[in-house]
Order: sequence, then C-alpha cells, then structure tokens
Amino acid sequence: MSRILSSQLSQHIGQRVTLSGWLHRWRPMGGFGFVVLRDRDGLTQAVVDSPEQLDGIYAESVIKVEGEVVAEPKAPNGVEIHNAQVTAISQAAEPPPFDLFRPMLNAQLPTLLDHAALTLRHPRQRSLWEIAAVSMDGFRSTLRRQGFTEIQTPKIVASATESGANVFKIDYFGRPAYLAQSPQFYKQTMVGVFERVFEVAPVFRAEPHDTPRHLNEYVSLDAELGFIRDHHDVMDILTGVLGGMIDAIQTQAARAVGILNLKLPAVPAKIPALHFTEALELVYKLTGEDARHEPDLSPQHERVLGEWALKEHNSAFVFVTGYPMVKRPFYTHSDAARPAYSNSFDLLFRGLELVTGGQRLHLYNDYLSALAGRGLSPDAFEGYLEAFKYGMPPHGGFAIGLERWVTRLAELPNVREAALFPRDIARLTP
Amino acid sequence: MSRILSSQLSQHIGQRVTLSGWLHRWRPMGGFGFVVLRDRDGLTQAVVDSPEQLDGIYAESVIKVEGEVVAEPKAPNGVEIHNAQVTAISQAAEPPPFDLFRPMLNAQLPTLLDHAALTLRHPRQRSLWEIAAVSMDGFRSTLRRQGFTEIQTPKIVASATESGANVFKIDYFGRPAYLAQSPQFYKQTMVGVFERVFEVAPVFRAEPHDTPRHLNEYVSLDAELGFIRDHHDVMDILTGVLGGMIDAIQTQAARAVGILNLKLPAVPAKIPALHFTEALELVYKLTGEDARHEPDLSPQHERVLGEWALKEHNSAFVFVTGYPMVKRPFYTHSDAARPAYSNSFDLLFRGLELVTGGQRLHLYNDYLSALAGRGLSPDAFEGYLEAFKYGMPPHGGFAIGLERWVTRLAELPNVREAALFPRDIARLTP
Repeated sequence: MSRILSSQLSQHIGQRVTLSGWLHRWRPMGGFGFVVLRDRDGLTQAVVDSPEQLDGIYAESVIKVEGEVVAEPKAPNGVEIHNAQVTAISQAAEPPPFDLFRPMLNAQLPTLLDHAALTLRHPRQRSLWEIAAVSMDGFRSTLRRQGFTEIQTPKIVASATESGANVFKIDYFGRPAYLAQSPQFYKQTMVGVFERVFEVAPVFRAEPHDTPRHLNEYVSLDAELGFIRDHHDVMDILTGVLGGMIDAIQTQAARAVGILNLKLPAVPAKIPALHFTEALELVYKLTGEDARHEPDLSPQHERVLGEWALKEHNSAFVFVTGYPMVKRPFYTHSDAARPAYSNSFDLLFRGLELVTGGQRLHLYNDYLSALAGRGLSPDAFEGYLEAFKYGMPPHGGFAIGLERWVTRLAELPNVREAALFPRDIARLTP
Repeated sequence: MSRILSSQLSQHIGQRVTLSGWLHRWRPMGGFGFVVLRDRDGLTQAVVDSPEQLDGIYAESVIKVEGEVVAEPKAPNGVEIHNAQVTAISQAAEPPPFDLFRPMLNAQLPTLLDHAALTLRHPRQRSLWEIAAVSMDGFRSTLRRQGFTEIQTPKIVASATESGANVFKIDYFGRPAYLAQSPQFYKQTMVGVFERVFEVAPVFRAEPHDTPRHLNEYVSLDAELGFIRDHHDVMDILTGVLGGMIDAIQTQAARAVGILNLKLPAVPAKIPALHFTEALELVYKLTGEDARHEPDLSPQHERVLGEWALKEHNSAFVFVTGYPMVKRPFYTHSDAARPAYSNSFDLLFRGLELVTGGQRLHLYNDYLSALAGRGLSPDAFEGYLEAFKYGMPPHGGFAIGLERWVTRLAELPNVREAALFPRDIARLTP
C-alpha cells in the first residue's frame, strides 16, 4: 500500500492507509496506547491496541503505521488511525537526550545547537526554517517578476577589500585569499550586464563578537539595480520585496505561522521615512536625549524610532535615510544638496536594523577620488573599477540578512535559532 | 519622459520615446549614423541625423536616446528610432579593449576572463548566464512543487571529512577549518527534518587541476529525499528536474536560446539506464575494447555510451547505475543482491558525466561499519552520525554542477565561460 501524508488523512476516512514517518510520541495507556507519527506534512495520532508492538522502539525511530482512518473530533485535525499496526523502518539507537513532543524544547541553547540533527526535527524549530525557506522564495519571485536576473558570485576573493578587517583568510594553492564579506562589488559589476540582479548566498564575517545578534556565516539576500533616480527608487523596490516575502510566508508557510504563533507585520505601500537629522531631532523631542551631534544611531535610538513608527504610522518598519558619509563605505553616493550626508538608508524592523542599502557612486572618476580620499590604492580594485571605466548607470541596492529577518519576525532571543547550523566564534560543529 | 525598454518599442510606433542603456555600437555614415543601444531586454537601432552628438563618446558609455519610433523592416526587430537625440549619462573613460558588437568576442579566453566586467556584457556571454539563472529557477520550482524544502547549510566546516583531500583550509579565529566540498552531510541530516530538501550554493574543491573542465569553486544544485525504495526513485526525481530545467530555459530564456543557437535536448519520460556491468559489455560489443575488469568508466567509454543512447533511444541522456562500491564514498548504499556493486548512478549528458547520485546508507550501525571499514574514526563525524542514531528513512539524492550543465548545453569548449567570475588554480580575480 503506498504511503499517504498526514495532511491527506481526512480524504481517506473509512479506508485502510499506510503512513510513514518518525515516532514523535508514544503514550501507553494500559491495554492500548497512542502513537503520534510525524511526517513532512504534520502529525497523525494512531490508536494501538496491542502496545507490545512498540516494545524497544525509541522515540524518533522511523516507523510505518497501517490502519483505518476514523473521524475523531478529539484527535488533532479531527481524524485518527484505529487498529494501527506499527512497524519499525529504522530504529533509533537510543532515546533522544530531550523530548521532541513537548511544545518547547527543554534544554539550553548550546545543548540544542550541539544536537542540531535532532533539534531541527522539533515542529517549532523546523517551522523557523520553513519561514526562512519561503522568505527566500518570496524574495526571488518578487524580483524576478520585476526583471531581475539571479547571479552567483565567487566567495573566494583575492583581497580583503570592502572593509579591510574581519575577513577569514584561506590558503589558496599556497597564496593568500579571503572569504567574501558580501557580493557588493560583484553585484554592482553585474548591473553593467543585466541592469537588475539579485543573489541569495552565504557571506562570511570574521567579527570576533559573541552576542545573540552575530553569526560569522549567514545568508545574505542581495539586490542591486541600475537606472535609478536615487536611493528612494531602491527603497521602493525593497518595500515591494518585503511585501512579497510576507505574502510568501502567508501563502506557503501557513502551518509554520500557526505553530510559531507569528504575528506577521503588514508592509505599508509607503514605509515611513525619516532623514538621519530628522531622526535625531525626533529622538530628542521624544526622549529629551540630545544626540544631534552624533554620526550614528544607537540601538536605543532605533528602538525609540521603531515605537514612533508603530504609534504614529501603524508601521513595524521605518526607513532612516541620509546617514553621514563618514559612517558609510567608499562606494556610497552623497546627497548632492548636502554632501556630508549620503543617499543611503537603513530599514528598521520593530526597532532594529534589518536592511542597509543606498545609491552607489557610478562615475569612474568619483571612484578614483573616493578611494584616494580614504588612502586606498585603485590597484586592489582593478576588476571592480573596470565596470565603471566602461560606463555604469546610476544604481543602488540593499542586503537583507536572512537569519536576522526570521529572528525579528519570530521575535527570537538569539539569531542562532534562525540558522540551521550556526557558525559563531566558538562553534564550528555540527 | 519615462524610460521604455527595447522589447517595448513596437508598442510605441509613431510616438516619441526615451530609451536608456549602453552604446553597443556607433556607425557613422557621413552626414548621419546609426546608434545601437543595448538595454537589459535587447538592442535598439537609432538613426542619428547630427552625428557630432556622438563625438568623444566611446562604446559602452551609458546613454539616453530620445526619438520617434518608426516601423522599418530592415532594422532589427522591424522597428527603429528616427531623429534620435543622444545624451551621455555616464561616459566610458576609454574605448573597450575588444569590440562588444561583434557576434563573437575576438580575444583569447584569459583576456576575456581578465575583463569579465566587460566580457559579460556581450550578448552571447550574458545569454550563457541567463541559461544558468533560469536553470536554477527550474530546479527549485520543480522540486518545490514536489514538497521539497530549500536549505542553506554552512560552507565553513570543522573537518575535511568527505574525501579527506582537496579541501581549502581557513583560519577560523586561530583554529583550522575548511571550505565545504559539498553539502552532502547536511542535506542528509535535513532529510531527517523535512524528508525532501534541496540547496543551490557554492562548493569548493582544492583540486590542483588546470583543465577546461575544472573549477575550484562552482554552484552545486543538490537534492536529497527520504522514503525511497532505492536509487531508481532518485533517478525519477532527477529526470523530472531536468525536464523542469529545460522547460524553464524554453519559457523564460527564449531570447538567450536564440542568441546562442541552443539545441535543447528533450528529456525522455524514462531516461535509458544501463547497469555498470552492462555498460562495459556494451562498450566491448560496440568497440571491441574489453574493459570488463575495470572498476570505472573512462571518458572514451562515456562518449561511446552517449552515442549509443542517442542512436538507439534518441536520448541525449543515459544513466549508468551500480558502480562498484570501491569507487564510491563510504555513505553509499550497496546493492542487496550484488554487494560489490552500489545503488548509485551517474547521468551522462551528451557522453559526459553531468550528475552523480544514489541511495545512501540510512542505518546507524551500517555507518559505524562503513567508517570502520575505511579506517575512519566516528568521532570526526559526530554531528552527522547523530541523524542516523535517531532514525533516518531510506534516502538518496544527487548533485548537478551548474556551470557544467551550461557548458554541456551550449557545447562550450571551456567551463570557465559558464561561470560569471571563475576561480581556478591560477585565477582569483576579478
């Protein structure tokens, strides 16, 4: 008899069926018991009349359950299996170190991460990744519909150019090389080819921070587009992308949303935006704290702005634009009217920075000046500069950190829960 | 006036329009001239009555062309711009080192790769990547429709476990680490979570080969699925995926197919399959060469089998199954009936290996035996083995090399042409 999935059970009431999956839970009740089977679509309860069938079969063993489908209002999904015959397909060698059937995993985070192969099987943990997976799909499909081409750019690079610090060093056939901190230079180069590009790929940051917000390897959702007026065109594309990601979660991951009890934010047609200087004025007005001389926003300022956006605009998102040039990378385009400020932005989501983006320089001579201004030699940037030497349109883009997005959406205390196999300063396994 | 794209021109006959893009070609004819503008959708020809407008504007400059749309049977696409006003948006600093308007780029491959930012703008080169981009989309969408979940697994790993050799070494905060050669262990682990998973991500091979077939970093299209009978179920999924990739190319990259003059192969509902022993018998019969004692197929054998499949089955694809266990990795599942042979396969495409896959071991004790049999300690595999310790279904999967796929499809002489910014033993830039 061919296998059906948990979600198909209600179409088979009165029939004998076979399900396969993991032994999520076994509850012996005396002369009978309940098996809860977990497959990729959900859970199924089965009543076992001869409980000795389960003797020696630990939780998480892979089993086959054969029996009759019966409507049962008290069972999960209103249906269960009666007269179940249980066969082990692949037995667990020992009992799991923590119970997977409980609503929340009862172990400390390091233990959970050590046992990722098991932890990720928990309905809540796997739902977190389902949100990540459909978010990637929503990101890609929204951009593809708008004429963007997917790219895949190298992760092994010749020089630690973008920030200089915090790069992982590789031995490349006896020569030094580095892991890419971002696809920034390549995605800009590819604007010269396809005008509109995106990439979903790992990035690597050798930041020696051990905090609940840092990963040393994460998935970056990058986009870059040409023929823009300024950074506001980039913000419009980003707004549409966020809407597409939320739509994908609602339509493709409804079960995960339910398990996690996610409150998905609405993405306004126009996300409220404050210039950096306005943002500091607003913080001053709201809190009495005068940070108007500061070149950056503190996490506390971001929280205040997030609360303001929610209260005044009913928006979980708020843009801060025009950060001072001194705090932005060399390829940042300045504001023609106020050259000390940039045509860049951060997007705050629930009071925390989620996305950074902006307009980039596009003229060759502006790059030469910007590099010289920072004391950098153009030689190290030769392949990148070639794009500008041969004509590039005004362009800009943004990058969303996938794990940070899921962390904010699910209001997780630690970004490590949003990665499958997180890498941090202390963790290289599993 | 807002910008329209080349593809929209025929909807605007008789109107004044603005196009923006790159100066693909300038042909002065005396008192007038032809501008060919290139944008993300194609080429547009514009008649310029005052050719001095183009003075000092090199090819590849970004320009704006304003003029009247006129039907002109002799022009590309049957339409051109008259009375064109050309404005430079972003001037090329110097003339390109090779002409981008010629049907083929007239430079040696190393020169072309050195100038990737420019080379990729050529219609033929960018079409090659379009094929790659839509192939990724076809891969993902075909699998998603069949219940597969996308994963992203770490590229920085703690041990050089899979093959032991040919790994890039990283300095990870003072500790040694390695770049992942494949997501093999992680995708298997994730079968324990989602049953069916796929990943599109870079892999890294420190193979010291300098050949037209090798890249040291490439994009791997990986899939893995549980609850299979044996490797034939994996081959069926792969067959559907190849069909989905070809469909995506036909429907989403028709212009690139035309530019490249691609002859797309049909994917048979059932791809012909030969057992390894049958394949060697067939080679003996067809060529008189007796390699029936060999543990592997030579490239020459693969070519013979490819020709046979095309002639006898009208198929560009042929499976070879059951490779000897001695030539396959430790996690390979053997054939129960003939334990010296494996439940694995290679897929030959036009006589060359494109995909490797098979059924994996799924029982914990089988892993312990397989590792012991190869003299490997289970300690180095702890996180991976945990998946099997706690119950894993029979499963298998495959990996397609993206650049190799495009190379075969377009019958390119060198795989480097199918990568955006290839990495080989000598090349780390651009």
